[in-house]
Amino acid sequence: MYGYIGSMRTRPGKRAEVIALLSGSLEDLPAAGCLSYVVSECADDEDRIWVTEVWESAEHHSASLQLPATRAAITAVMPLLTGEFTRQETRVTGGVGLPVNR
Amino acid sequence: MYGYIGSMRTRPGKRAEVIALLSGSLEDLPAAGCLSYVVSECADDEDRIWVTEVWESAEHHSASLQLPATRAAITAVMPLLTGEFTRQETRVTGGVGLPVNR
Repeated sequence: MYGYIGSMRTRPGKRAEVIALLSGSLEDLPAAGCLSYVVSECADDEDRIWVTEVWESAEHHSASLQLPATRAAITAVMPLLTGEFTRQETRVTGGVGLPVNR
Repeated sequence: MYGYIGSMRTRPGKRAEVIALLSGSLEDLPAAGCLSYVVSECADDEDRIWVTEVWESAEHHSASLQLPATRAAITAVMPLLTGEFTRQETRVTGGVGLPVNR
């Protein structure tokens, strides 16, 4: 399984709007191989959002970026961000709340 | 919901052993309020492990550290780590693969 841990900074006061846009675009992800997609407010930075994701493979993740709802969300969100991102890729070995043996 | 995104560095060559110890200690977590607990190998650091967690509340997370299996895993794992940790707390707003409206 492929894992992605990322953060983004929003322009001041725009975090709730960005979270709403991201959260409204997730309906098609499970069918595209998404096993987990967690959206969070950073506890100690009022303009930062964290997203942690688990996918069946890196290829599933890459392909998902072309889904219409995902493309629309990216287009809507980008002007609300500062351009400061962090990203960490992982190989997920297992845990709680995931399908096992995939 | 409370979120935790952490990483730890293992002593050289000890990552698989640490992952096995962590992964073997998770059985009691769902009943303790754990909604997601994802264990991963860092893709670009062969001695780093990432753990991302979602709990019903910060209090559930804190209380879980006293579970017998969790205490035993921490005791077993600590000598295999370098002491280099990262930690990020979040407020989880939702996503895919989580119970909603909690």
